[in-house]
Amino acid sequence: MKLDDFFANTIHSWMDGTGPHADIVISSRVRLARNIAGVPLPHMLTNQSANKVIESIERAVDDVNKRGNMGKLHLFSYENASGLERQILVDKHLASPALGQSCSTCGIVLNEEGSLSIMINEEDHLRIQCLQSGLQLAEAFQLCSSLDDGLEAIIDYAFQEKYGYLTACPTNVGTGLRGSVMVHLPALVMSGHAGRMLNTVGQLGLAVRGFYGEGSEAAGNIFQISNQITLGHDEEQMINKLSSVTSQVIEQEEAARKALLKNSRVSMEDKIFRAYGILSHARVMNASEAMQLLSDIRFGSETGILPKIETRTLNELLVITRPAYLQWTTGRSLEPAERDCVRAEIIREKLGSDNS
Amino acid sequence: MKLDDFFANTIHSWMDGTGPHADIVISSRVRLARNIAGVPLPHMLTNQSANKVIESIERAVDDVNKRGNMGKLHLFSYENASGLERQILVDKHLASPALGQSCSTCGIVLNEEGSLSIMINEEDHLRIQCLQSGLQLAEAFQLCSSLDDGLEAIIDYAFQEKYGYLTACPTNVGTGLRGSVMVHLPALVMSGHAGRMLNTVGQLGLAVRGFYGEGSEAAGNIFQISNQITLGHDEEQMINKLSSVTSQVIEQEEAARKALLKNSRVSMEDKIFRAYGILSHARVMNASEAMQLLSDIRFGSETGILPKIETRTLNELLVITRPAYLQWTTGRSLEPAERDCVRAEIIREKLGSDNS
Repeated sequence: MKLDDFFANTIHSWMDGTGPHADIVISSRVRLARNIAGVPLPHMLTNQSANKVIESIERAVDDVNKRGNMGKLHLFSYENASGLERQILVDKHLASPALGQSCSTCGIVLNEEGSLSIMINEEDHLRIQCLQSGLQLAEAFQLCSSLDDGLEAIIDYAFQEKYGYLTACPTNVGTGLRGSVMVHLPALVMSGHAGRMLNTVGQLGLAVRGFYGEGSEAAGNIFQISNQITLGHDEEQMINKLSSVTSQVIEQEEAARKALLKNSRVSMEDKIFRAYGILSHARVMNASEAMQLLSDIRFGSETGILPKIETRTLNELLVITRPAYLQWTTGRSLEPAERDCVRAEIIREKLGSDNS
Repeated sequence: MKLDDFFANTIHSWMDGTGPHADIVISSRVRLARNIAGVPLPHMLTNQSANKVIESIERAVDDVNKRGNMGKLHLFSYENASGLERQILVDKHLASPALGQSCSTCGIVLNEEGSLSIMINEEDHLRIQCLQSGLQLAEAFQLCSSLDDGLEAIIDYAFQEKYGYLTACPTNVGTGLRGSVMVHLPALVMSGHAGRMLNTVGQLGLAVRGFYGEGSEAAGNIFQISNQITLGHDEEQMINKLSSVTSQVIEQEEAARKALLKNSRVSMEDKIFRAYGILSHARVMNASEAMQLLSDIRFGSETGILPKIETRTLNELLVITRPAYLQWTTGRSLEPAERDCVRAEIIREKLGSDNS
């Protein structure tokens, strides 16, 4: 399997909109940071040693594939991966931006549904990641753990009784676990309550970021909530805490939606139908406007103001309107102005064909 | 015939989009100011004398109707006309705002197509007006003159050899003639050349105003160009001068359209399709936004960027989205916020039904 074949499938399992609370929680993600005992950490690695890490992981993955309980996993070396391909994996949330920018001694393992991935030689030797649709942190953790266990049959992880799993960055030491959810909070944003709610989440020791990781603004009213502390906590406790905070965020968003529809129905309808009208007609659209208008019609579809638009279509649009994918799909490098035209065209086609 | 029956027909001949250059010139209007000899001017009239003016005109109109060469004319007294009805006549460009605000001793004569009207006891006893689609000033003048001649068989006009027709305002003395055209100049406005061009028109002794008369801004890129001087000029000279200036304005607008489509095609397409998307989806729309977006799709339809939208539909929308008509059609007084909803609904329906 080539990365290209993998990209041709634009909907991965986290995008399919079938999970619990998928009207508010786009996806749940769990990742485990692991390192191989006795091998220098990635930033200290020679190319030769880095390749040995890849080889070890390849053997472990082959072994997991033989057992067959994790579906079919494919290893892609980054040696020949283009910058565009790396960026698409980042936009699909299957790789981190750090892996995207990294050297030729990196790689990635993916299953065919895109629900499981292992980043190789990013900050740690392995970052095992599972992405699920909706609020499914426990399920994502379960899958990660199974893969982790499968790999451990071959790989000897760096682990100390006192600290737990050893990692490149001290914030990951311990369980090596990070969980996060992507939540779409249009009503909290429109009613001006998002800031207060997200502050509270921060005070609970969780981090809040935009859809595309650290530093990115919360474009399209999509926020990423993740746990920060990995040491001294039991994995299940951490997952439960994040799930429980997310449930409260869901409740607040639902209440804000009800209030908006009760008190400002006409202006909400106007905003949503205008967004649909613009998305289905515009010839030029930048990424930030697209994110905002897609948020509006997602809200409209979920509240019944618009005829139903498939959640999978909306999730897919978030990814396939990103600059890298636009260039991959047209097969050439695009100036920003051209990208805005292709983006507008893709959105019109998707909305027209899937929801006519 | 009641005014209500007359309003039920929303398209009058000036709106039908069939005249020459109707892609740029919405309508041509000629009006003649006349007063009855030996009767004080309207602002000096007692109610009794005002009614006598109406009676004289009624007799003259009956006489014209008997001869049958001007179609069927109807006289409506303003005695029982509501403020809403008066305003609708103004919005349809069949009466002036001054007549709309005026006393109960006014009236109006209309033919069924709405191409001819006579305002009674506005600033002058009679203001005979003809409105035609496109650039048809000579035809409009012809029709006005015929009606003028017809009325003169019964009415003795105030006329002096030296000054010509006597009128309430000295700017109308002489021929009593005013000609005007409504021109839609989106490309000149968008390319920033409208101001210079309209200044030049002003220097030629013509006046430039917005679509709804003096003081109104040029909403929707529609300008009214009219002659200012009525004394010391031959009627045909005046009509020819206005026609010739209008032809030059048409040429400049056409050149500006070509340049815009050549140099900024993508952004023009985007602007126009967005306008169409918003008009066909919005739930709330104020009058000024409607005028602007209707201008955009008119431009789009005329340049072939959009599928053809009937000019008569676009002209009709200019009038039926005005506050007075919205209230007449819903049969009740509407708050501005309600009007914006009804306006959006009417536009969606018209664009959907006439151009699906």
